[in-house]
Amino acid sequence: MYPKKLTRSVVSNPDYPVVQTTQGKVRGLLEEGVFIFRGVPFAQVKRFAMPEKVTPWEGTRRCNVYGPVCKEIHTPIAHDEYNVPHFHYSQDEDCLNLNIWTKHINEDVRKPVMVWFHGGGHATGSSIELYAYDGMELADFGDVVVVSVNHRLNCIGYLDLSEYGEKYRYSGNLGTADLVASLQWVHDNIAGFGGDPDNVTIFGQSGGGQKVATMLQTPAADGLYHKAIIQSGLLEARPDNSQESAREMARLTVEHLGLTKENIEKIETVPYYVLARAAQQAAADLGTPIGTMINWGPVLDYDYFLGIANGIPFREETKHIPMLVGNVLGEFDQNFNCIYAEGSKNDWDDEKVDTLIKQLYGTQADAVRKGFAKAYPDKKIVDCLYTSRIWRQGHKDYCNKRAAQGCAPVYNWMFSLELPMNGGTVAWHNADEAYMFHNANYLEAEYIPGVSEELQDIMTGAWVAFAYTGDPNHPGMAPWPPVKDGNGACMIFDRRVYAAYHHDDDLMAALDPELLPPKEITIPIEEGAGTFGGGPRQSL
Amino acid sequence: MYPKKLTRSVVSNPDYPVVQTTQGKVRGLLEEGVFIFRGVPFAQVKRFAMPEKVTPWEGTRRCNVYGPVCKEIHTPIAHDEYNVPHFHYSQDEDCLNLNIWTKHINEDVRKPVMVWFHGGGHATGSSIELYAYDGMELADFGDVVVVSVNHRLNCIGYLDLSEYGEKYRYSGNLGTADLVASLQWVHDNIAGFGGDPDNVTIFGQSGGGQKVATMLQTPAADGLYHKAIIQSGLLEARPDNSQESAREMARLTVEHLGLTKENIEKIETVPYYVLARAAQQAAADLGTPIGTMINWGPVLDYDYFLGIANGIPFREETKHIPMLVGNVLGEFDQNFNCIYAEGSKNDWDDEKVDTLIKQLYGTQADAVRKGFAKAYPDKKIVDCLYTSRIWRQGHKDYCNKRAAQGCAPVYNWMFSLELPMNGGTVAWHNADEAYMFHNANYLEAEYIPGVSEELQDIMTGAWVAFAYTGDPNHPGMAPWPPVKDGNGACMIFDRRVYAAYHHDDDLMAALDPELLPPKEITIPIEEGAGTFGGGPRQSL
Repeated sequence: MYPKKLTRSVVSNPDYPVVQTTQGKVRGLLEEGVFIFRGVPFAQVKRFAMPEKVTPWEGTRRCNVYGPVCKEIHTPIAHDEYNVPHFHYSQDEDCLNLNIWTKHINEDVRKPVMVWFHGGGHATGSSIELYAYDGMELADFGDVVVVSVNHRLNCIGYLDLSEYGEKYRYSGNLGTADLVASLQWVHDNIAGFGGDPDNVTIFGQSGGGQKVATMLQTPAADGLYHKAIIQSGLLEARPDNSQESAREMARLTVEHLGLTKENIEKIETVPYYVLARAAQQAAADLGTPIGTMINWGPVLDYDYFLGIANGIPFREETKHIPMLVGNVLGEFDQNFNCIYAEGSKNDWDDEKVDTLIKQLYGTQADAVRKGFAKAYPDKKIVDCLYTSRIWRQGHKDYCNKRAAQGCAPVYNWMFSLELPMNGGTVAWHNADEAYMFHNANYLEAEYIPGVSEELQDIMTGAWVAFAYTGDPNHPGMAPWPPVKDGNGACMIFDRRVYAAYHHDDDLMAALDPELLPPKEITIPIEEGAGTFGGGPRQSL
Repeated sequence: MYPKKLTRSVVSNPDYPVVQTTQGKVRGLLEEGVFIFRGVPFAQVKRFAMPEKVTPWEGTRRCNVYGPVCKEIHTPIAHDEYNVPHFHYSQDEDCLNLNIWTKHINEDVRKPVMVWFHGGGHATGSSIELYAYDGMELADFGDVVVVSVNHRLNCIGYLDLSEYGEKYRYSGNLGTADLVASLQWVHDNIAGFGGDPDNVTIFGQSGGGQKVATMLQTPAADGLYHKAIIQSGLLEARPDNSQESAREMARLTVEHLGLTKENIEKIETVPYYVLARAAQQAAADLGTPIGTMINWGPVLDYDYFLGIANGIPFREETKHIPMLVGNVLGEFDQNFNCIYAEGSKNDWDDEKVDTLIKQLYGTQADAVRKGFAKAYPDKKIVDCLYTSRIWRQGHKDYCNKRAAQGCAPVYNWMFSLELPMNGGTVAWHNADEAYMFHNANYLEAEYIPGVSEELQDIMTGAWVAFAYTGDPNHPGMAPWPPVKDGNGACMIFDRRVYAAYHHDDDLMAALDPELLPPKEITIPIEEGAGTFGGGPRQSL
C-alpha cells in the first residue's frame, strides 16, 4: 500500500508474475520476495443487485494498482488521523475487487489464507484505508496468503428496498453478499496464488469484526471459511438492525428522491451523490444529523442474515469454527486528544489524577481504582480514565457464549500496550492492527524501539499459528488457554505477554454504565486534525 | 507522507516540537531527526475572494496531520497510477495549508528554503499527491527547509468572473494569489523553522513548473523568492490563457448555474459539486468532453499576471533569478502501457523496431534515427519511439530566451534514465521527482539497486547546491555549465551523468510535428489501472 524502502528491483513485467484465474489471467508484481496482486475483480455490480461473476476477459489483466474503493457519503479527515493514518483512494460504485499478498504463485503450496474485512462501520473504509492493513509484512513474516476485500457500503450496500419488489429482496444485505462473493472467489482461485482453499481464516476489526460475526450467521457463507478472528467488533448488547427500521430508512430515502413504487427503478440510475443526499436526509429525519456517520449494517431478515446478538444462538453449521476474539484497552475512551486535561497524562500529579477519576466515575471511583489495579497491575492508575467497558464486555460475553454453546475453541485477548504518542497514550481503537499485521514499525504514533519489534513478532506469530492450526499458541509466547468452563481466560498483549484469568471482572462490574454518573466532560477538539475549518465537513 | 520504517520513537508531544508563528503556535513532530509540520494554515479563503491572513488563534494548533487538499472535479485512478503512485486525501475548499520538513526549529540557523508547487495542471493534485513529493529525505539529505503548498485549483481557483463585478476582479488568478500568499507566509515565518527568508527557491513539476514560470511574471510575488526551478513545465509555443476565453468559460458556467449579473453572488454559496458540474457543462460547450480534464490556468489580464509565452519578455524584476530548467526524455510519449506493441520494448527484434519507427515517423524515420543516435549514444534506438519533442523544445527555448535576455545563469537538464518497469521504460512525466526528492528507493517502478542511490545523491545534491548558492555544481558531479552564448549546454542525468552541447538539435529538428505523419497509432488501454469499469469515471 505504501512505498517501502526497497533493496531489490520490483518485477512487474508483461509476462511475470501472471496467474490464471477462472475469469482470465491477472498480472501482479514481485516486491522484496512477496507477490502482490492489487485490484483483482472478484465480482461485478449492478446497483441494488446481488454481485455477479465477472465477465471473463481475454489477455492479461494488469493488477499492479489498487482498484477503486466504495463510494463514501463523506470522506473527511478522520478525527484520529494522526494515530490511525488513513490511505484514501479513488471511489467508485464498481468496487468489488480484492488484493493479494503471497510468497508463492504455485498450485501445490497450499498455504493458509487470511481474508481481511476492513472497518469503518458499514458506512466507510476500504481494503486499503489504514496503513496498518498492508498485507506485505504479514505474508512475508507468516508465509500465509493475505487477501483484503472491498465491498459495497452505506446506501449502496445496506439500503433495504425489499418492500419495493422481489428484485430488491436482498438489497439490505448486499454488502454482506459481496463479502460472500469474495470468499467464493477465494475458494475458486486462491490455489493459484499458493493458498489452501480448505484453510481460510476470516478476520476483521471494528466494522470488520462485525462483518466476521455476521458471516457466521449468514448461511450463504457456510463452507467458504474455516477459522474466524474478531477484533474490537462486538459491543455489549448491540441490537441487531431490524428489518422494520431498515425499511423505514429506505422508505424515507425513496421519498426524498421523489420516487414511488411505480418508478422505483430510477433509483438504480440516479447519480450516487443524489442517492447519498436523500439517504442523509432520511437519516436526519430519523435523528442522525447530516454530516455524521449513519449506522448502516446488515439487515436481520431471518433469511439472508440470521442475527448475532440479543439471545440469538450460534448456528450449528458454524460451531466447529475456532475463533480469536478480543479488543484493546482504550478503544474510543482513549486520550489521543488529551481529553480531560492539558498536556500528557503521565505528567499529571496524583491530585489531578484523583480529581479526574472522581469527576468521571463519581461514587464508583474507588471501585474502578481497585478493579483497575487488580486487572492491570503493571499500569498506572491514571489509565483507568481511558478504559473501555462496552467493547471489552461485548467480547467477553461473546467468548463465554461460544464456550457455553459447545463451539470449537475460542481464545480471548486484550491489547493494552501504552503507545508513545502525547508522552504516553492508552491503546486506541485500531491500535492492535499494526501489531498483528507486523507493521508496528511503520506507524508514527505506535512505534517503540525494541518493544514493537518483539510484540509484533509475538502477536503476528499467534495470528499466523491460528491460521495454520486453529490454535494461536506458538513457542515464542507464554501459553494461551482457550475460554472454557467459565475460566475467564484472557491473553494480555503488552510489554509483558501473559495469560490472566477473570482479571477484569471487578473492573467491568465497577464500570457498569448504570452506576456511573452521566458523562459531563466534553472532549475539547483541538484545532487541526479533522476539524480543519471546523466541524465535520460536508463532502458532497 | 507515507509510513517510513522507523528506528526511533516519533516525538509528537503537547509541548514539543512547538513553533511560534505570526498567527499562533503550531505543534508538529520529530521523526528520524527531521521536524515535520503538516497542514499549517497560511491563509484563509472565502470562495472567489483573494486569500486573507488566518485569524490568530489561542493555544497551540496541532499540525501533525495533513490539512485538506483542494477539491477536484474528478478524482479517478490515474492512468499511470503504477508508475506515478498517488496519495489521495480529504478534499475541501478550505485548503490553504502547507507542510514543512526541516532539521531545525531555531531562528539562528537560516538554511535555504525550497518551496514546492505541485503538478496536475491547474485542475488537480495537491502538496502531497505524489509519493515522490515527500520532503523528509530531501530535508535530511540536503539540510534544507522543504515546504509544499496546497492552493485553490480548477473552478474555484481559476474561474474568471471579472465581468461580474469589481470584487471578482482577480478571481481568474486566485490559485496564483494563493501561492503568493504562501510565499508571504514563508517570508514572515520560516525563520522559526530554521529557514532563511532571504534564500527561498521555488520549484515545481508539470503544472507546478508552470506555476513557477507564472510566479516570475506575477509582480505580487516579487521579492518573496530568490531562485527558481522548472521541471517539465513548459510546452513549446504554449498559448497563454487569454482573458477573453477565460471570461467566455465563466459566462457559460454562470449560465449553466442559472445565474445572472443581478444574483451572481449566489455563486459564492452553491455547493461545490453544483459549481463543478456547471463548469464541466461550460467546458463541454467549448469542446472539452465531460469527464476529461479542463484546461484551467492563470488568466493573462496584464495586471495580476503578465504572461509567459508568445514573445512576452521576462520582467526586469526577475532577471536576477538564477534558474534550473529541464525535463525528461519520454514525458507523455513514454511506454508505460506497452504502447505500439505487446510485451517489453527491450525484447523486440530489429525488424519490429524498424517497422514501428517507420510507422510512427514516416519520411522522417531516418532523420529521427540519426538524430537519436547522436543525441543519446548510450541508448537503444527503440527509445526514439518514446522521445518527447514538445516539452523538450519548450525548455530549450525558455533557457535560450533567458540567456539571450541577459538574465542570471540558467542551467538546462535532461533526465533520461531508463526505468525498470515492464522490462525497461523510457523516463516518464514525473519520473525525475523521485530523484531530486531523494525518494527513488521508495518507488516500485523506479528503483534500480545501486544506480538509484547514486543518481539521487547526484541529482538531489545538485538541487540542494542550487538552493544554497544559485549554482547546481557540486563535487560529486561532472561540471554543469549554464546555457550561455548559444552553447546548447545540457546536463544529462542517466547512468552516466555528463554535460552535452547541442546534443539533440538534430533530433528535435527531425521530430518537427509539421514534418511527421498524423499519429494513427491509438494507445490500447489495458484493463485495470485507471480504466477499471471502463473509461474515465464520473466522480460526482
